[in-house]
Amino acid sequence: MSHNTFGHLFRVTTWGESHGPAIGCVIDGCPPLIPLTEADLQPWLDRRKPGGSRFVTQRKESDTARILSGVFDDGAGPVTTGTPVAIQIENEDARSKDYGEIARAYRPGHADMTYQVKYGVRDHRGGGRSSARETASRVAAGAVARKVLGDGVVIRAGVVQLGPHRIAPDAIDFGAVYDNPLFAASAEMVPAWEAYLDGVRKAGSSIGAVVALEVTGVPAGWGAPLYGKLDAELAAALMSINAVKGVEIGAGFGSAELSGEDNADEMRLGPDGGIEFLSNHAGGVLGGLSTGQPITARVAFKPTSSILTPRRTVTRDGTDTDLRTKGRHDPCVALRGVPVVEAMAACVLADAMLRHRAQIG
Amino acid sequence: MSHNTFGHLFRVTTWGESHGPAIGCVIDGCPPLIPLTEADLQPWLDRRKPGGSRFVTQRKESDTARILSGVFDDGAGPVTTGTPVAIQIENEDARSKDYGEIARAYRPGHADMTYQVKYGVRDHRGGGRSSARETASRVAAGAVARKVLGDGVVIRAGVVQLGPHRIAPDAIDFGAVYDNPLFAASAEMVPAWEAYLDGVRKAGSSIGAVVALEVTGVPAGWGAPLYGKLDAELAAALMSINAVKGVEIGAGFGSAELSGEDNADEMRLGPDGGIEFLSNHAGGVLGGLSTGQPITARVAFKPTSSILTPRRTVTRDGTDTDLRTKGRHDPCVALRGVPVVEAMAACVLADAMLRHRAQIG
Amino acid sequence: MSHNTFGHLFRVTTWGESHGPAIGCVIDGCPPLIPLTEADLQPWLDRRKPGGSRFVTQRKESDTARILSGVFDDGAGPVTTGTPVAIQIENEDARSKDYGEIARAYRPGHADMTYQVKYGVRDHRGGGRSSARETASRVAAGAVARKVLGDGVVIRAGVVQLGPHRIAPDAIDFGAVYDNPLFAASAEMVPAWEAYLDGVRKAGSSIGAVVALEVTGVPAGWGAPLYGKLDAELAAALMSINAVKGVEIGAGFGSAELSGEDNADEMRLGPDGGIEFLSNHAGGVLGGLSTGQPITARVAFKPTSSILTPRRTVTRDGTDTDLRTKGRHDPCVALRGVPVVEAMAACVLADAMLRHRAQIG
Amino acid sequence: MSHNTFGHLFRVTTWGESHGPAIGCVIDGCPPLIPLTEADLQPWLDRRKPGGSRFVTQRKESDTARILSGVFDDGAGPVTTGTPVAIQIENEDARSKDYGEIARAYRPGHADMTYQVKYGVRDHRGGGRSSARETASRVAAGAVARKVLGDGVVIRAGVVQLGPHRIAPDAIDFGAVYDNPLFAASAEMVPAWEAYLDGVRKAGSSIGAVVALEVTGVPAGWGAPLYGKLDAELAAALMSINAVKGVEIGAGFGSAELSGEDNADEMRLGPDGGIEFLSNHAGGVLGGLSTGQPITARVAFKPTSSILTPRRTVTRDGTDTDLRTKGRHDPCVALRGVPVVEAMAACVLADAMLRHRAQIG
Repeated sequence: MSHNTFGHLFRVTTWGESHGPAIGCVIDGCPPLIPLTEADLQPWLDRRKPGGSRFVTQRKESDTARILSGVFDDGAGPVTTGTPVAIQIENEDARSKDYGEIARAYRPGHADMTYQVKYGVRDHRGGGRSSARETASRVAAGAVARKVLGDGVVIRAGVVQLGPHRIAPDAIDFGAVYDNPLFAASAEMVPAWEAYLDGVRKAGSSIGAVVALEVTGVPAGWGAPLYGKLDAELAAALMSINAVKGVEIGAGFGSAELSGEDNADEMRLGPDGGIEFLSNHAGGVLGGLSTGQPITARVAFKPTSSILTPRRTVTRDGTDTDLRTKGRHDPCVALRGVPVVEAMAACVLADAMLRHRAQIG
Repeated sequence: MSHNTFGHLFRVTTWGESHGPAIGCVIDGCPPLIPLTEADLQPWLDRRKPGGSRFVTQRKESDTARILSGVFDDGAGPVTTGTPVAIQIENEDARSKDYGEIARAYRPGHADMTYQVKYGVRDHRGGGRSSARETASRVAAGAVARKVLGDGVVIRAGVVQLGPHRIAPDAIDFGAVYDNPLFAASAEMVPAWEAYLDGVRKAGSSIGAVVALEVTGVPAGWGAPLYGKLDAELAAALMSINAVKGVEIGAGFGSAELSGEDNADEMRLGPDGGIEFLSNHAGGVLGGLSTGQPITARVAFKPTSSILTPRRTVTRDGTDTDLRTKGRHDPCVALRGVPVVEAMAACVLADAMLRHRAQIG
Repeated sequence: MSHNTFGHLFRVTTWGESHGPAIGCVIDGCPPLIPLTEADLQPWLDRRKPGGSRFVTQRKESDTARILSGVFDDGAGPVTTGTPVAIQIENEDARSKDYGEIARAYRPGHADMTYQVKYGVRDHRGGGRSSARETASRVAAGAVARKVLGDGVVIRAGVVQLGPHRIAPDAIDFGAVYDNPLFAASAEMVPAWEAYLDGVRKAGSSIGAVVALEVTGVPAGWGAPLYGKLDAELAAALMSINAVKGVEIGAGFGSAELSGEDNADEMRLGPDGGIEFLSNHAGGVLGGLSTGQPITARVAFKPTSSILTPRRTVTRDGTDTDLRTKGRHDPCVALRGVPVVEAMAACVLADAMLRHRAQIG
Repeated sequence: MSHNTFGHLFRVTTWGESHGPAIGCVIDGCPPLIPLTEADLQPWLDRRKPGGSRFVTQRKESDTARILSGVFDDGAGPVTTGTPVAIQIENEDARSKDYGEIARAYRPGHADMTYQVKYGVRDHRGGGRSSARETASRVAAGAVARKVLGDGVVIRAGVVQLGPHRIAPDAIDFGAVYDNPLFAASAEMVPAWEAYLDGVRKAGSSIGAVVALEVTGVPAGWGAPLYGKLDAELAAALMSINAVKGVEIGAGFGSAELSGEDNADEMRLGPDGGIEFLSNHAGGVLGGLSTGQPITARVAFKPTSSILTPRRTVTRDGTDTDLRTKGRHDPCVALRGVPVVEAMAACVLADAMLRHRAQIG
C-alpha cells in the first residue's frame, strides 16, 4: 500500500482532484476473462453519486465511468485481459468560484492546514485531492472487485446509527439500505431519521453516523498472519475513507467488557460435517484469517466539517479569522459513505482471495 | 506491508513461533549513525515480558534480545550502519507438554481452526505463530523506532478500561502506567482493579480492556493521502496486534454523535505565531496528515481466549468435544498489550518520518 | 515494483493498449512545488514519437500529453502538489484493420503466444499492451523524473551499434544523438548508417542495435544494498523495455576478460580534496551505490520482430501457418528506444534520490 | 523489492555481515506442506562454501544452516507451515585482524568508499554487509525455492568463460559443473583452465568470468507485463549478485547483430499438438512471459577486486596511499557465484509461479 495505491495483488491506484478535469483509477492485477463493461460499474456509482436527494450535496455529477484499457471483446463480449483496467470519471459540475475564501483560510476539520503545511501548496478547490469526490474511484474499483469475487461473496453495508439515533442490532436489515435516501439499514427508522436530518440540514449543521458492514460467503482461511491480517487490512481500508474515525470488527469495543466465557465463539459440527459457530463475536476473523462466518465491522464517521455556522480559524498568511463554509455539502457524509465502505471491503477481499490462491493454490 | 513485514521504509519483518527455538525480527531501512545497543531494547522488552506479576502469564522468559547485525562500533560506541538490524530472542521456557490436547481440538477464540484450514498444518504448541509471544519482536523493533524518532516524540499508552471499569478521560495519567502491575493509566484506580482482576484470575476466567495511546511531539505534516493516511496506517498496525478488535482515532465512535459545530477543532494563532487548536476531536490527524496536536487513539482488546471453563468445540478430525484450556495465560491480555501498542505506534511513526523526509526533504 | 508499476517512492503506474482510446500513467510520490506543465513533457515525447523519419514507423501520432491531476497554479505558475500526477495520451491513428490476421496467428518474436496462453485472451490490435506504444508513458514519466532530479543530473543515451556497425568508445558523442534520424551517437557515422538502414528497411527486414547510456551529476552514495542496488534497479528498468535482451554496467561483459589489476578503478585525491577515480570500469556503481563518477550502461535491443518476410508459426486454434507481418513498423526498434532508455534511467534515479533522502536525510 | 528484501510473494529478507556473529534470511510467503529440513539446504550451501579447493578463499566455514521457524513436524515429517522460515548460519572463521588496514583505506573495486560516504560509518571487517558472504543466505533461500518449484523445474548454471577462455555454445555441459573445482560447464576444459587459474592465483591476481544459466521445465505463461517481466526480474536478481556487471537473456548482446529474419524463433505444432519453437533466441521469454522453452541467460562477473598487487587509493581521512589487499580471497569470484546464480533464478521463478497462480488460478 503506497500513498495513492491500495492492495497487494488486486492493486488500485487513484488520482484526481475535486475540481480538476477528471478523477480515475488504475486497477492492476485483475484476473483475466472476467466479463466487464461500464454497465457493471454504473449502478454502484449511481448509489454514491451526489444530487440524489435533499440529504446529500446538490452538486450535479453524472459520475459516468469510462473504461480506457484492460478490457477486450474477442467475440464473446468484453472481458478483462489481465492488463491494467483504467477507469476515468469526468468532473462536470466543478464550481470553483464557491471556494475562493478557502484558498486563504483553513476550514476546521478539513485537511486544508495539513496539506498546506506538508506540501507548501494545495489545490484548495473543493478540497482538491482530500475531497470525498475521490471515493467515486473507490466505488468503481469496488465494482470490479465484486466481479472478481463472484456472486458467492455478498457485501452489504448501511447506516445503523445517525447521531444519537441507533438501530438495534437485531433490527438491522441491509436489504432496506438502498431503498431509502438515508441509506438506513431499517425501513421503519426512515421517517423519524428524515425528520431529524432535515432539522440538521436546515440548521446548516451536520451530524456523524455509524455504518455497519456485513460480508457473507467468504470461505474459511482467507487473510494472513500477522501484518497482513484480514482485519488489519480491513481496518486500514475503512479508516482511509474520508471522515472515518473508528473501525471495529465483530464485538469490537464491546469485547472489552466481555469475559472469556462470553466472548468465545463455541463450535459444533453441523449436519453436513462442517464447523458451525454458535456465535460471532469474532466478526468472522480469527488470527487474521476468515472463519467462514459473516465478516462484520462497524465504521464511525465524523460529521461533515463543512457547516454554515462560522468557526474560528486562521489563514495561510497568519491571521485569525472566522469562517463559514459555503458551497454544497452533505449534512451527513456517512450516507454516501455506505457504498464506499462496501467498495473498500470488496477490494480488500478480492486482494485476499488472490493472495490466498497464490500461497495455497 | 506483506504478511510478516510491517512498514514501507522502516520495515520490520518478524519470524518465529511460541515454542520454537527463538523468535526475532529484521529491521530494514533504519537510518545510520543511531547509537544502539541491546541495553536500548531491554527496558521495553522487560515491560512486556511475562512473569512480572500475578496478573500475567507465569511463563518464565528473560526475553533477552541479541542484536546480530546492522550495528558497528567504529570507536565512538555502537551505532546503526544503515544495514539490516537482526534481533533475536531465545524461547527459554517452552513447555510443549502443556499443549498436547490442543493439537487435536480447536480452542474457541484462537486461530487454531483457521490456521489448520488455511495451511493444512499448524504448529499448535502454544499457538505457534499466532501466539502473542510474537509481540516481543514488535517491542524490540519499537525500541529501535523510538531511537529513530528521537526524544522529541513521546509515545505513551495505558489501560483506561478494564472490563466494565473505566478511567474518566480527564483522570488519565500515562505517567502511572508502568508503576502498577495493571498498566493502568491511573494510580488511584489500581487497588479496585487489582481486586477485580484477582477475582477474574481466580475464577480461571478472563476479561477484555481498552488501551489508550497518546503521542506528542509529532510535527504537522507527517502521513500521506490517501491509502497511506497516518490514521489508516495506525489502524492497521494496532488491529494487527493479537486480540485487538477495534481502533478509534481522536473522538472515534463518539464522533458519530457530534454535530459539525461541536466536532470542529477551531484554530487560533498562538503567542509565537504558530497555530493552536482549541480542541482535539481529530486526534491529531486531518486528511491523514498529522496536525501537530497529540495523536490519540483507543484500542479495544478482547478477553484472553484461554480460560479454564470448558467450552464446546470440534476436533481436527471432526468430532464434537469440550475443551478447557490449561497452560499459563494472562487473565487480561490487554495489560501486556500496552507496550505493544506503544511499539506499533513507534514503528508507524518512524516509517512516516522517513517517508515524509523522502517526499518533502 | 508490481506488474504495471515501477519504482518505490517515485512510483509510475502505466496503463493502456496500442489501439485503445488512450494510454497513460499515474506518478505517485512526486515531491511538491516542482514547476510542471505539459510543455515540460512534450519535447521528450516528440523525440520518441512515430513518424519523424523514414527510419521509424509511419503511424501518425501527435503524442500530445495531457496532465489531469497533481498540478496546481496558485499564482506563481503550475507546480506539482505532491498528489498523483495523471498523464494521458490519446491514440489517434489506430488502424486496427491492419492487424486482422494476427488475431489468429502468433507473430514470431512477439508476445502474442505468451499473452494468449497466460491470459486466455489478448488484445491483438497492434500488440495491445505489449506494444512499444506503451513506452510513450515511460517517456512522459521520465520527463517528470528529470524535473525532480534537477539540471545537475544529465541523462543521455544514443545508438552506438547498429547491427554489425559500431561506434568506437572514444568516438561516442551523445551531443549528436538528437540531431540525426538514427539517434546515432556520432554525426560522422550517420551517412553510412542511413545507407545501411535504408537497405534493411527496403528489404522489409529489421536489425538489432546497442544503445549506450551515460548519466553525469549523480553524487556518491545513491542506491542501496543488496536487492535495491542501483545497478540492479537499472538492469530491471532497462530490461523491462520492449525488445531489450541485455544490460551491462560499466565494463560489463568486457570485465570477464579483465584482471583484477586492470579492472580496479584506482583513486587519488583531487585538487579540491575530493576523490578522483583514474578509470571507470565500475560504470559509476560500487556495491550498488553510486560513486560520483558517470553512470554508464549499454543496452542490447533485438531486431523488430515485425518483418515482411513470411515466417513459420502456428495459429491460436492449432494449425501451422506462415505469417508475414504487415502494418507499419520500425526497421530498428532501438532508435526510438533511445529516449525510453533515458526515461527509465531518470525514473530509477529520481526514485533513488528520494530513497536516499529518506534514509540518510 | 526493498533494500534487503527480494521477491513479491516468495519474499526473502537477508541480514548479516561478513564478520558479525551470524548471517541469515527470513523467507515469507512460502506455501505450506512442503517437506523441508536442514538437510535440504546443506548440499546447495556446500557447493558455495569456501575452502573447497585451492581456487577459492581459504576461509574455513562449515556454512551449517539452522532453520529456526516456519517448519513443523506433525507426525509425517517436517513441513513448511506457511509462516516465515528463518534460516541462520554462524560465522565461524572471522579473522578480523586481517582487515585492520582497510578500516582506513578504501579498497579499489570494493564498496568501501561508497558505504562510508553514504552511511558515514561502515563495518569494514571483511567487507561487512557488502561481502559475498551474504550470498550464503541467497543459496539457502534458493534451496527452499527449489522445493517450492518442485522437480519439474531444473535450474543449472556453470562457468562458460574464464577470462579470455570460452566454452563453445554447443560444448556446454551443465552436468559437468559440480564435478570440477572450477564450476566449468565442460569437463574437457578443466585441465587447461586449472593451469590458467593457478597462474592467476599464484600471481596474487584475479580474473573475471561469465556464468551461463539454463532453466528447463517452466511452463508457458509465467511472468507479467511490464515492469514485472520475467526477464526484468531475472536481470535485477542476477545483477544484485556481488561482482556482476552484465546480464543477457537468450541471444542477448548478440541479438544486436541479428536481422529480424534470423532472430525470429519460428513455431510449429509438435506431435502432441503443443507449440514447438525452431530456435531460442528469445531465451525462453517473450513480452516478459515464459514461452515454455528453456530460459537462458548469461551473467558477467568482474574479477575479484582483492588482489596482492598494490593499487593507488585514498584513505577515509583524506590522504593518498597505496593498498595491497591481504586476507583470503577467491582468484575468480564467479566460480562460487555459480550456485548463487542458480539460487537467484530459483527465487525469481518461485515468486513468478506464485504470482501466476494468484492472477490466473
